[in-house]
Amino acid sequence: MDFKTKLDKAISKSSSLLCVGLDPDPQKLKKSESQFQFNKIIIEATAAFVCAYKPNIGFYEAVGLTGLEDLKNTIFFLKKNYPLIPVILDAKRADIGNTTLSLAEAIFDFYQADAVTANPYMGFDSLEPFLKRRDRGVIVLCHTSNPSSADFQELSVNGQPLYIKVAQKVVQWNKKYKNLLMVVGATNPTQIKRIRRVAGDMTFLVPGIGVQSGNLEKICQNGLLKNGRGLVISASRSIIYAQDPAMEAQNLKNEINKYRQG
Amino acid sequence: MDFKTKLDKAISKSSSLLCVGLDPDPQKLKKSESQFQFNKIIIEATAAFVCAYKPNIGFYEAVGLTGLEDLKNTIFFLKKNYPLIPVILDAKRADIGNTTLSLAEAIFDFYQADAVTANPYMGFDSLEPFLKRRDRGVIVLCHTSNPSSADFQELSVNGQPLYIKVAQKVVQWNKKYKNLLMVVGATNPTQIKRIRRVAGDMTFLVPGIGVQSGNLEKICQNGLLKNGRGLVISASRSIIYAQDPAMEAQNLKNEINKYRQG
Repeated sequence: MDFKTKLDKAISKSSSLLCVGLDPDPQKLKKSESQFQFNKIIIEATAAFVCAYKPNIGFYEAVGLTGLEDLKNTIFFLKKNYPLIPVILDAKRADIGNTTLSLAEAIFDFYQADAVTANPYMGFDSLEPFLKRRDRGVIVLCHTSNPSSADFQELSVNGQPLYIKVAQKVVQWNKKYKNLLMVVGATNPTQIKRIRRVAGDMTFLVPGIGVQSGNLEKICQNGLLKNGRGLVISASRSIIYAQDPAMEAQNLKNEINKYRQG
Repeated sequence: MDFKTKLDKAISKSSSLLCVGLDPDPQKLKKSESQFQFNKIIIEATAAFVCAYKPNIGFYEAVGLTGLEDLKNTIFFLKKNYPLIPVILDAKRADIGNTTLSLAEAIFDFYQADAVTANPYMGFDSLEPFLKRRDRGVIVLCHTSNPSSADFQELSVNGQPLYIKVAQKVVQWNKKYKNLLMVVGATNPTQIKRIRRVAGDMTFLVPGIGVQSGNLEKICQNGLLKNGRGLVISASRSIIYAQDPAMEAQNLKNEINKYRQG
């Protein structure tokens, strides 16, 4: 089953567009607790309310090899116990083609992620080895949620901002590979409208809800498809460090669904 | 000692601008040979001829945790036996600031690299946690060596290509942090001239010599500073898989030096 089909089924089963970011900061964990143990508790509390999980590899790399083992164990735990929930490895990669081939092996074969986030700056051939894995998803950064995203993404290229040029290319590549999605940060409610116009019914991964204070209502108004899909809305810190992650996830799921029926 | 000082001393000591990319493709290794063992032989053969080593993390990640242990062992072997040769970890990263902080811990503290390559697409705050590590180098992708680099890097922004906008920003950031360098692929001999004009005496890391067929003579003519420095020229496959890596490295060092005296 390819990534998009898996994601679509998970959205149907959970009635949710919520993705939880599994980003355990070692400094916020109890001393005796591993990142895997932390994740297991979060997963068991939130699995009923999500359509995807998204570990960011950086939080595991910071701990070294034991962290990366915890990442692997987390994904394997998900595959075994929640096989219908897709796993997006947030890695924001791309390199010359010869190297991206190795990155694809790492992300899709060793970690067994269903999808990866990727950076467009180096262009098509830097992503192609990801794209050729047609059963996996490739989620290209278009307009990110961080304050400095405007430094380059908003630069005007012949009257259109760079992020629109990126969106156009991603749409073009998707005609052949059909496994592309885009990252559009929740802090960009105006931009998501423009990107939606370019991207047809492509699904956007939307980080930046919660701690980064994205505007959920506007994002949904401007980004959702008529069928109430087309967005996967990701929250990490606001859920995984909540007093009650289950309740936080359920509330966010319900809040998003309110706008889906709007 | 900061990265630039360390690099400068290594250039003086070796009389070389050559950097060897330690990118052992597992499929090209003997069955019983680990990536670390392969690297050790390459390092011992080439250390006299290089000013830096540059492992690309992708080749190690592809092997999983044992690969990353080999990466760590490779860098520790260098630190112990060749402490004057700086190590650039080629990882092409950047993420929202909170995550880049974790990436900096991984790259600079766990792997103990002296410098990292980074991707500019997400803008300043996605790099800032790297930059704040002022003793380490941050080498930002400007114009890369792969064929599709033109997809976005050559787009015209108010009459100037995007890669020049990136170069301008990097120069601006460097006024404060003083630890920035740029990646300029050897396949871009014309573009390096324009980037040099913007970048003053900033050092460029130049991959793409060898298998990617960059034009060494033109790159040196257009990129070298008057003092015969300002470039670190990286070759990987053409050296590490050569019959005689020592001779290959020495020859390339000498060829580069011919143009330095030109």
